[in-house]
Amino acid sequence: MPAVPHDLPDETLDPRDWEELRSLGRHMVDDMIEYLRTVRDRPVWQPIPDEVAARFRQPLPTAPAGLQRAYEDFRRYVLPYPTGNIHPRFWGWVMGNGTPSGMLADMLAAGVNLNQGGGAQSGVLVESQVIDWCKSMIGYPGEASGILVSGGSMANLVGLAVARNSRAGYDVRTEGISSSAPAMKLYASVEVHSSVQKAVELLGLGQKSLHLIPVDAAYAIDMSALRKAISEDRAAGLHPLCVIGCAGTVNTAALDPLDELADLCVKERIWFHVDGAFGALAALSPELRPLVKGMERADSVAFDMHKWMYLPYEVGCTLVRDSEAHRRAFTLTPEYLEHTTRGIAGGDIWFSDYGVQLSRGFRALKVWMAIKEHGIEKFGRLIRQNVEQARYLEGLVRVQPDLELVAPVPLNIVCFRYVAKKRSNEELNAVNKELLLRLHESGVAAPSYTMLGDRYALRVCITNHRSKKEDFDILVREVLRIGKEIG
Amino acid sequence: MPAVPHDLPDETLDPRDWEELRSLGRHMVDDMIEYLRTVRDRPVWQPIPDEVAARFRQPLPTAPAGLQRAYEDFRRYVLPYPTGNIHPRFWGWVMGNGTPSGMLADMLAAGVNLNQGGGAQSGVLVESQVIDWCKSMIGYPGEASGILVSGGSMANLVGLAVARNSRAGYDVRTEGISSSAPAMKLYASVEVHSSVQKAVELLGLGQKSLHLIPVDAAYAIDMSALRKAISEDRAAGLHPLCVIGCAGTVNTAALDPLDELADLCVKERIWFHVDGAFGALAALSPELRPLVKGMERADSVAFDMHKWMYLPYEVGCTLVRDSEAHRRAFTLTPEYLEHTTRGIAGGDIWFSDYGVQLSRGFRALKVWMAIKEHGIEKFGRLIRQNVEQARYLEGLVRVQPDLELVAPVPLNIVCFRYVAKKRSNEELNAVNKELLLRLHESGVAAPSYTMLGDRYALRVCITNHRSKKEDFDILVREVLRIGKEIG
Repeated sequence: MPAVPHDLPDETLDPRDWEELRSLGRHMVDDMIEYLRTVRDRPVWQPIPDEVAARFRQPLPTAPAGLQRAYEDFRRYVLPYPTGNIHPRFWGWVMGNGTPSGMLADMLAAGVNLNQGGGAQSGVLVESQVIDWCKSMIGYPGEASGILVSGGSMANLVGLAVARNSRAGYDVRTEGISSSAPAMKLYASVEVHSSVQKAVELLGLGQKSLHLIPVDAAYAIDMSALRKAISEDRAAGLHPLCVIGCAGTVNTAALDPLDELADLCVKERIWFHVDGAFGALAALSPELRPLVKGMERADSVAFDMHKWMYLPYEVGCTLVRDSEAHRRAFTLTPEYLEHTTRGIAGGDIWFSDYGVQLSRGFRALKVWMAIKEHGIEKFGRLIRQNVEQARYLEGLVRVQPDLELVAPVPLNIVCFRYVAKKRSNEELNAVNKELLLRLHESGVAAPSYTMLGDRYALRVCITNHRSKKEDFDILVREVLRIGKEIG
Repeated sequence: MPAVPHDLPDETLDPRDWEELRSLGRHMVDDMIEYLRTVRDRPVWQPIPDEVAARFRQPLPTAPAGLQRAYEDFRRYVLPYPTGNIHPRFWGWVMGNGTPSGMLADMLAAGVNLNQGGGAQSGVLVESQVIDWCKSMIGYPGEASGILVSGGSMANLVGLAVARNSRAGYDVRTEGISSSAPAMKLYASVEVHSSVQKAVELLGLGQKSLHLIPVDAAYAIDMSALRKAISEDRAAGLHPLCVIGCAGTVNTAALDPLDELADLCVKERIWFHVDGAFGALAALSPELRPLVKGMERADSVAFDMHKWMYLPYEVGCTLVRDSEAHRRAFTLTPEYLEHTTRGIAGGDIWFSDYGVQLSRGFRALKVWMAIKEHGIEKFGRLIRQNVEQARYLEGLVRVQPDLELVAPVPLNIVCFRYVAKKRSNEELNAVNKELLLRLHESGVAAPSYTMLGDRYALRVCITNHRSKKEDFDILVREVLRIGKEIG
């Protein structure tokens, strides 16, 4: 490498003019807060024009354009065309809105930019406290361990990895999955979220190890079918490893009987994991808490704060009852990371011992600040408000002869369809499919959809702190209008 | 559940007074920019006083304290005690600093809060463009696929998952790891990063499937030992699956001969994965690019932008040459996520088909804006500047009789120790261990350490856009001062 002349100045990514940056930063705050304040006035969603999309095909920039120009590109080409989940009438899939103060907290986190792998630094204390609070929130034992992760997929993966590594009956970390030992089996209802399948596959257990159990009319797991599956698998020499209970299924927010699952898992000595991606947080409402009773008895629980705690992406959590099993599933502690008692690498808690990541960002901060800002009771009230809204929408659907409820409404998800005129199910599916697309394109409201049996249903999942009752009136009105339009 | 009285107002997490929030947001920007501007004036690190730590043991807050108060807690108890990696004299482990504009970009990302799982929205175009740019940056083929992930650990996991799923020779996703097929073997040098072991374990392959190969005097993989291992494994009926090449090892930034590894993998029909967590980005400097030649031939490459691209946590990237193999390793596309051509769920690219996460945050934005702001050439110059600084420090160490270089300096990591007075190696290790702790406690500089053979070395890893040459003078002066003090 040729030598660099000694008179070259040291370069940096810090600004030459801090005052200019400060002024632009204030501008961004102003713009974004105005953007959030006025979200209700804009369409939920709009397609990206071709000329905008073309902008994103420009090659790698070599020369600097400056932050002002980069921000201008963001404002013109990115900001107008988001997913739409920040809007009061977005109820698609399971998405939260984010919050204005969560946005600011993410800025603070990126500024201090500490590494949450561990060490003697304040971020570790923040995350530890958040995990303690999470345990309180869902009534989980204080001695449990936990870790914040990117979301429900990782949260399930972490929980199931601990299950596999601690209950395989042999040293999976060293040996790998062995076919000489009895094959491990996991159980969940057919309504279980796809991330569980993804985790099972990633862990090398194979999709076929995931035994999917039928559901009852409420879309909850059929307990007798589960018992039968476990005993048949045992009889066949297989190893029942883990039952995954759903605290709120993705399709209809159905709740598996968690207390019965806990009893069964104790009796059968099976790991009990609860996927509570959004539903776990129903525990924050005293009125709803009984619906998820039994969750606190699980060996591991996965849930998200970017769904029904409304915080910005990404933040989920895994809690594990047996903290030693949790640590043993992940710790490596190579010599260059040996924990010391003094200096930066001091401190007792190394989150990298409890999950997949080594370097980790400060996602804990927005949770910590939000709980301080609002107090946890407010989140309980908001969650209950969303459940009330689901019941309100259910009522609107029930009284409308042109609409049909397609599934029970146990929590915050309403599945319904447009059924005016006598039509075959196939025709109804086609009509409702077109109806949903036009609804998106109208910008008025954004449910998603699901298939329930052979029925295509509009699916309204309410994890939205901006929705008001009137928004559901608007939804129903618009669905009826578009339905008529389709004819 | 008792009915909610109809006169209750709709609650929300939006502020009652937007003007007040805007004013507080501006304040936060001011404070954080001042915090970054003055970082050089503060200690790199300081321990957390007990009375501050005690604050983090308060129970779950039920009532609201307001954002102002939550922010005050952040300012008083969090901000003064970070890891220290934003400081110009932090060179521990492998950490970037973050940037002031990256901080602002993370705020924008959290505000628009779009879901990068996929769909017809601008974030997908941003991330697709960033991935295209990443391919250009490291000279990777344009038809490759890629995904942004939380960091190096996930980036390696994704690459190795594709290797396993596409090259096992049977359907691992369905069947799981099978002992009836020949056992898969992975190869890497003994210097490989621990995240590779973690990934191999998570994937159910077992640590014993990871064949660790000795290194030469430059800490690069011993090619003849690797060839021998592969042929012996084949002869034993095992299945050589994947070679992991290091573009910059974590201990000494050693560079495996990537071109030779690529040749070998082609010949042996083995998947070639490059862990380029930080080193891959040496390709951004025309002068350094020859050091990582061969990386562009890999089947998959993992690297981080929160290390040697200096951006705030969390952002890493996996690129995969065979985009179909990449997609087949992860896609699930259940019916409630069926891709459509219109509406929000339209669009061709679903990142959730290419990795572990389903909901995903907008980490792409800070990369996109940073490259536009600075142009990619600047990053190349900064990387080269860090390498020059490593050579400068190497020079300082070489001329100091009381210091000893412990490893070669191929890139940006300098391992050295204090060796004044004739002492046994054991004594030297104890002295240098104490020296490092006092160095951290002094707040002057923060290297980390590693063991090289039986020698404890101070390890200075320079992935820092704030370091100046004079900072290395200060480091050496302080090491000598503390060394003398220890005696």
